[in-house]
Amino acid sequence: MSTPDAVVTVGADLLADAVADQAVPVTRVDWRPPMPGTEDDLAVVAADPRRREANERALAAVLEVTATLVDVAPASEVLGLQPGEFLHAGPPITWERASGPLRGALMGGAALEGLVDDPEDAEPLFEAGTSVSLEPCHHRSAVGPMAGVVTPSMWMFVLEDRASGRRTYCSLNEGLGKVLRYGAYGPEVLDRLRWMGDVLGPLLQSAVRSVRDDRGPVDVTGILTQMLQMGDEAHNRNRAGTLMLLRDLSPALVLGTRRGADPADVAEVLRFVGGNDHFFLNLAMPACKLALDAARGTEGSTMVVAMARNGTDFGIQVAGTGDEWFTGPAQLADGLFLGDYGPDDANPDIGDSAITETAGIGGFAMATAPAIVRFVGGSVPDALATTRRMHEITLGENPRWSVPALEFQGTPTGIDVGLVCRTGILPQINTGMAGKVAGVGQVGAGLVTPPAEIFPRALARLAELARPFTGATAPA
Amino acid sequence: MSTPDAVVTVGADLLADAVADQAVPVTRVDWRPPMPGTEDDLAVVAADPRRREANERALAAVLEVTATLVDVAPASEVLGLQPGEFLHAGPPITWERASGPLRGALMGGAALEGLVDDPEDAEPLFEAGTSVSLEPCHHRSAVGPMAGVVTPSMWMFVLEDRASGRRTYCSLNEGLGKVLRYGAYGPEVLDRLRWMGDVLGPLLQSAVRSVRDDRGPVDVTGILTQMLQMGDEAHNRNRAGTLMLLRDLSPALVLGTRRGADPADVAEVLRFVGGNDHFFLNLAMPACKLALDAARGTEGSTMVVAMARNGTDFGIQVAGTGDEWFTGPAQLADGLFLGDYGPDDANPDIGDSAITETAGIGGFAMATAPAIVRFVGGSVPDALATTRRMHEITLGENPRWSVPALEFQGTPTGIDVGLVCRTGILPQINTGMAGKVAGVGQVGAGLVTPPAEIFPRALARLAELARPFTGATAPA
Repeated sequence: MSTPDAVVTVGADLLADAVADQAVPVTRVDWRPPMPGTEDDLAVVAADPRRREANERALAAVLEVTATLVDVAPASEVLGLQPGEFLHAGPPITWERASGPLRGALMGGAALEGLVDDPEDAEPLFEAGTSVSLEPCHHRSAVGPMAGVVTPSMWMFVLEDRASGRRTYCSLNEGLGKVLRYGAYGPEVLDRLRWMGDVLGPLLQSAVRSVRDDRGPVDVTGILTQMLQMGDEAHNRNRAGTLMLLRDLSPALVLGTRRGADPADVAEVLRFVGGNDHFFLNLAMPACKLALDAARGTEGSTMVVAMARNGTDFGIQVAGTGDEWFTGPAQLADGLFLGDYGPDDANPDIGDSAITETAGIGGFAMATAPAIVRFVGGSVPDALATTRRMHEITLGENPRWSVPALEFQGTPTGIDVGLVCRTGILPQINTGMAGKVAGVGQVGAGLVTPPAEIFPRALARLAELARPFTGATAPA
Repeated sequence: MSTPDAVVTVGADLLADAVADQAVPVTRVDWRPPMPGTEDDLAVVAADPRRREANERALAAVLEVTATLVDVAPASEVLGLQPGEFLHAGPPITWERASGPLRGALMGGAALEGLVDDPEDAEPLFEAGTSVSLEPCHHRSAVGPMAGVVTPSMWMFVLEDRASGRRTYCSLNEGLGKVLRYGAYGPEVLDRLRWMGDVLGPLLQSAVRSVRDDRGPVDVTGILTQMLQMGDEAHNRNRAGTLMLLRDLSPALVLGTRRGADPADVAEVLRFVGGNDHFFLNLAMPACKLALDAARGTEGSTMVVAMARNGTDFGIQVAGTGDEWFTGPAQLADGLFLGDYGPDDANPDIGDSAITETAGIGGFAMATAPAIVRFVGGSVPDALATTRRMHEITLGENPRWSVPALEFQGTPTGIDVGLVCRTGILPQINTGMAGKVAGVGQVGAGLVTPPAEIFPRALARLAELARPFTGATAPA
């Protein structure tokens, strides 16, 4: 069988890839219809003279950020969070519209803060809404996985971009299963959170500050670079990242015993972090937000700077449209379930963790983490195809975050609202699944996409901003 | 372009694989000539009625072993090594025939043991040979990377198969660059070795014993399972393995401060191990030997149980031929060089570390570690093709050690002397390269194969043992 000189393929990516792997030139004639009703807005946005340069600037700003771990401290201190103030994942939402897992996490958080003795007693508090308030993490430079509930006493990772001094924040990861972020609020959940506040937070603070002052802060962006060579995609696999964090902090944790730390507490901290493969997720997320926030407010740019879900709504924010949220209904993930749980037990998509996909990792980097399919479902070829597909809706590649299995191609970075609308390809997110009933906790993990309609909505707003002023009143 | 119902390919693996990836049935007509002169012996060995069952038994024995880390102790204690006794990598060799890096390591070892003050003064000692003796590590249930020199005061990892109680041993890894195992013997090399004996060994001993007694010993085979999902092939990438070892030992190391350990020493141990991505190699190697030794002495089996090099000779041992070595000249690796070093600076292949390939990892598992090509050279498709090719010369797959990128196929395990001779495909080893001049240290890393002639030699001996006794005297 001889090798052809060239091949033309239409649509069939697998064949085209296979042929290309054998160094045969391939002409891919890949055509998909744009999303219905977007033709006019696509034309307006494409003609916006600011667009190309704005997108280049936005992407460059994201890629320049180096996230470092400079502190660990309570949210009351670093976010100024007051008693009764609750942060949550996703776009803004009220208690009335909140899903089970978000309600469960808020109820547990109220008990943790001593507003009620029993989490079950917190419902009237949130129904009345006089002594408590809800606000998205994203509005406070923070991100939170799953329910993403942050209360004043919770300890936060503090990440800083060395060049600009900008900071982002994220809570400490509790582990999997019955945990607050999945909406569980039983005694074991609250006991763990209290230990995290009393022991884990202070010991991490001491170690993080000591490393920062002695050797320079832990380079979170650099660990992400390494993780992607070690089978982690940094959303649902953070095993190597967690181990590298331990490597970087453990000498300082041990030396803390000279400053009065109990060796048994230090050993327990090492076991807790080492026993939770997801611990690093809460560093990957604020590192991604720190990078993306660098592009926030870039006029004319069609790049997505946040994707986030509160369990009811899925929202995106776009560089060229300020802090406006474009929202639609959160979808149910398709994946693998724990124990006897099934699709009927799952809540729609929830959490700020889709910030990882927004920055080009997580579901966008599944090709580098083929073992992830054992956790979120799908097949290994699917994982490779997903990363390749995401290159079709992104503005560029991240040279620091590369995928060895794709011959060190950079991760697909900078979701372009225009490309999503023009191709109909939706961003691929991999995610944990919370039980839909408050108090249940995690029921599985899987694959999900945003509701398609939010991209045409964002595009319409971009088109509105791009249209030359004609004297007519713009629609509200 | 429509999908064909079936494809017949001859030789062209890449095409066949690409077609198979698209779920088209492929008939591979893969024919290679056997190694010259092996036809008669191949026929005799193939007809040996013991062969099939013996190979099944040999492979099963290897796959059943679980290597656990039960102790760390000086070679004088656990191997009974006496003053003046030196172990080395590879098959037996004399000082006269020893290569530069082996000589350099022996000279440094003599100084470490106080037999001479200056390593340069040790040459007459080894030339005379009256007060010193050389013996392969393999003859003492041990393995050593590169020069593999072990002296009585060096601390050893002690691995045990839980089911049989059998043990294997390996020294502690010094790091890369100017280190004894690469033939360097300068003051910094000896200082590091003394610190390893005075601080690292005793603290590891205390932690390993404490973990063993409290929670059960560290499961080295289990860590290898995880590593292969994390971009390590466990020969020249051991980054994730090293981090998991740290995770498993660090709580006990910290608690050692309650028993009098200095926190500064513990912190230094954590930094030393965490700063040496190759530290786990010295656990991977004895784990592989522990597995393979289970098949040693299986009459009628054509499976290789050891591949090892002393820098001059490359030797193999085969399950069905007892402890006999079949040797030929060690080859030069093809790869990447450090700094200004080039091919002229490199010594031929050296070390017992090819025990990893013998057990199905290292070069045999390159598909799971595409990033390895940045260290040893080659391309990512080469790495995938190498693992696939090794399946053609191995008896089976290891269900515990799987390769996500190859859809969780088990690693190719149990090199069959018959399959090597019949196909001409040589085992692929990836390896560090030592400088050929004593004292230089590491000059690079690369890819290498055994000298082809040792497989026909082993086959001839297997044929001799397989031939029915006819009354004639067998050749010596």
